[in-house]
Amino acid sequence: MANSNNNEHFIPLSVPNFAGREKEYVSEAVVSEWVSTGGSKVTEFENAVAAYTGMPRAVACNSGTSGLHLALMAAGIGRGDEVLAPTLTFIAAVNPIRYVGAEPVFIGCDDSLCMSPAATQEFLRTRCEKRPGGVYNRASGARVAAILVVHVFGNMAGMPAFAALANEWGLALIEDATEALGTKYTSGPFAGKMAGTIGDVGAYSFNGNKIITTGAGGMLVSNHPDWAEHAKHLSTQAKADELQFLHDEIGYNYRMTNLQAALGLAQLEQLEGFIAHKHARWQQYKTALDGKNGYRILDFQEDGVRSNKWFYSLYLEDPRHDRDTMIAALKARDIQTRPVWALIHEQADYGKNEAYALEKALDYRARIINLPCSTNLSEEDCQRVIDTLLAL
Amino acid sequence: MANSNNNEHFIPLSVPNFAGREKEYVSEAVVSEWVSTGGSKVTEFENAVAAYTGMPRAVACNSGTSGLHLALMAAGIGRGDEVLAPTLTFIAAVNPIRYVGAEPVFIGCDDSLCMSPAATQEFLRTRCEKRPGGVYNRASGARVAAILVVHVFGNMAGMPAFAALANEWGLALIEDATEALGTKYTSGPFAGKMAGTIGDVGAYSFNGNKIITTGAGGMLVSNHPDWAEHAKHLSTQAKADELQFLHDEIGYNYRMTNLQAALGLAQLEQLEGFIAHKHARWQQYKTALDGKNGYRILDFQEDGVRSNKWFYSLYLEDPRHDRDTMIAALKARDIQTRPVWALIHEQADYGKNEAYALEKALDYRARIINLPCSTNLSEEDCQRVIDTLLAL
Repeated sequence: MANSNNNEHFIPLSVPNFAGREKEYVSEAVVSEWVSTGGSKVTEFENAVAAYTGMPRAVACNSGTSGLHLALMAAGIGRGDEVLAPTLTFIAAVNPIRYVGAEPVFIGCDDSLCMSPAATQEFLRTRCEKRPGGVYNRASGARVAAILVVHVFGNMAGMPAFAALANEWGLALIEDATEALGTKYTSGPFAGKMAGTIGDVGAYSFNGNKIITTGAGGMLVSNHPDWAEHAKHLSTQAKADELQFLHDEIGYNYRMTNLQAALGLAQLEQLEGFIAHKHARWQQYKTALDGKNGYRILDFQEDGVRSNKWFYSLYLEDPRHDRDTMIAALKARDIQTRPVWALIHEQADYGKNEAYALEKALDYRARIINLPCSTNLSEEDCQRVIDTLLAL
Repeated sequence: MANSNNNEHFIPLSVPNFAGREKEYVSEAVVSEWVSTGGSKVTEFENAVAAYTGMPRAVACNSGTSGLHLALMAAGIGRGDEVLAPTLTFIAAVNPIRYVGAEPVFIGCDDSLCMSPAATQEFLRTRCEKRPGGVYNRASGARVAAILVVHVFGNMAGMPAFAALANEWGLALIEDATEALGTKYTSGPFAGKMAGTIGDVGAYSFNGNKIITTGAGGMLVSNHPDWAEHAKHLSTQAKADELQFLHDEIGYNYRMTNLQAALGLAQLEQLEGFIAHKHARWQQYKTALDGKNGYRILDFQEDGVRSNKWFYSLYLEDPRHDRDTMIAALKARDIQTRPVWALIHEQADYGKNEAYALEKALDYRARIINLPCSTNLSEEDCQRVIDTLLAL
């Protein structure tokens, strides 16, 4: 390594933390030879996530992306529909809209980094109209079928406002909670409700960089029991008769395996501890960096919300800081960081889609660096990141 | 259990066999905390499958279904195209045709249970015509873009004939080798070539019931290096820039994880032994049952082919044997069997698709029972299945 003479080890951005019973549970699955989509651990993990999120049913699947694809299908979104979705997010939140043949209309963010409810309301009021059969986008003539909200970096999107909009306009409300397992309201109209459980249907991710991981994996939850069952059915190639191989729809092979679920069960046991660790390291960054050297550490919603604080955002307030130069300088010191995602309305296949109220998204895209945030990031390593940043 | 008083244990149809280094390799992955889509074992497993199949490159993915979806996309099959495909197969072979917006045209099987090259040729000669831009189905007016061959139950489809047809008509040749890892030509024009490596692109499955398993998983191989690279790109959300999150296509999250690959590496070490075991148990069934009590044990291609003999087929020659009554009687004796799949042209969403030369497929669907075939099926348990069948 370039800096091995500094005796500095590599500090990754976000890696798994297997301090618990991961090896034990996974070995059990291997020794039992139940590693595929049969086996009891998938059901155990579904039940454990359902219990944690306070939902009647959770449906395990093989990625957050497949969870969102199932959510859109369960919501009945199809060819020619439009879905209001954020431009500031990972592209996997939006691609499933295309998988079902629908088109996203991009909406900008507010200071939570999540899609702006105010801009969404304005778009609906100024650009759309109710007609028999639904809400229509006047410019495109397409039916607007759903709002897809992403809880960016674990921050809670403005769900009371989105729920009111979905109700007023008769739209499905889909929550991409892939980054937000554990984020919840502590007061207000949704007190006690978890991100992902407030709209019609929500999806979590257990990808390797998420707050808990199954290697790859996801989970769908829904307030409509029939939507959850439909999602489960679609995830198993829509097999309607186990013995005769009758399939009553075009399904997918989106099931989670027993091996993934074994890992997930061990991880879920540690989730609240991981969240406490995320809070501690975020506070360390906040205290040391906020307002110093032209930096801000972006806040998570604190008023009536307990966030999981999954991913930390350093905002470069001072224009003398160039994002990519800084990322390269940190990399040279064996510290892994990244910019926020390139906005989706600027990506190759989405350049022709309508996009609305983009100012803040453009600014945050240009000025955010995500800092190391693993749940095993030590106080000392966090301090090394801080010291390095203060010296830049 | 109903028959526990018989002291008879349950004999499953096809379950994983972890007699090798599965626990060791999986534990290594867990202890290293490399369980997600990063980590060295995915590349190791890709290289090991490439070496085993004699291909320059193999692309790991999260299921055989996703492997076929990637294969169709890599082949450029898209909306409005038609693909010639078998009706006697698992529906996951055909659904990916719909995923890309194309339609299957169903072709019946020959006595290998695989799609009939003769019927395929007849369909092309009598129902299709070459026009500028490709081959067109005269009845539907659609472009016929590809032949999708499935190596059913590990038996080799008639690849010299299919390769000649694909060449003559300018069609892509896609091999669903999900059931046929290890099946290969030993003489003839393709001597030494594995199932899956003869057409333009092929896919393997490592589902829990397959000859080797990764829990869930798949692998794509292609004779076009650019197709393989494109498939890899599409499997990683088409991320064109790792740091800036630029995505130049609509991609998917179809990656295999390091944990799955760890399992696959241990399984691949045992594959040739598993095939030898499959041969031995098939021979035991063949010797004991073929021609007795109105039974036949269907052959695998033997002339110039080494089959993996993945799944065994008991054919009920005598009409006094009713398939489903027999399956129920075997189940009551704790022996798991199944019929061949319901034909796909008879399934809910495919009833309106064109289907051609179906006689043999209808007959095999009605008269086949698949017998226990796990790679840890003992000679004694196999004999118990035989004795039970001879007493029916």
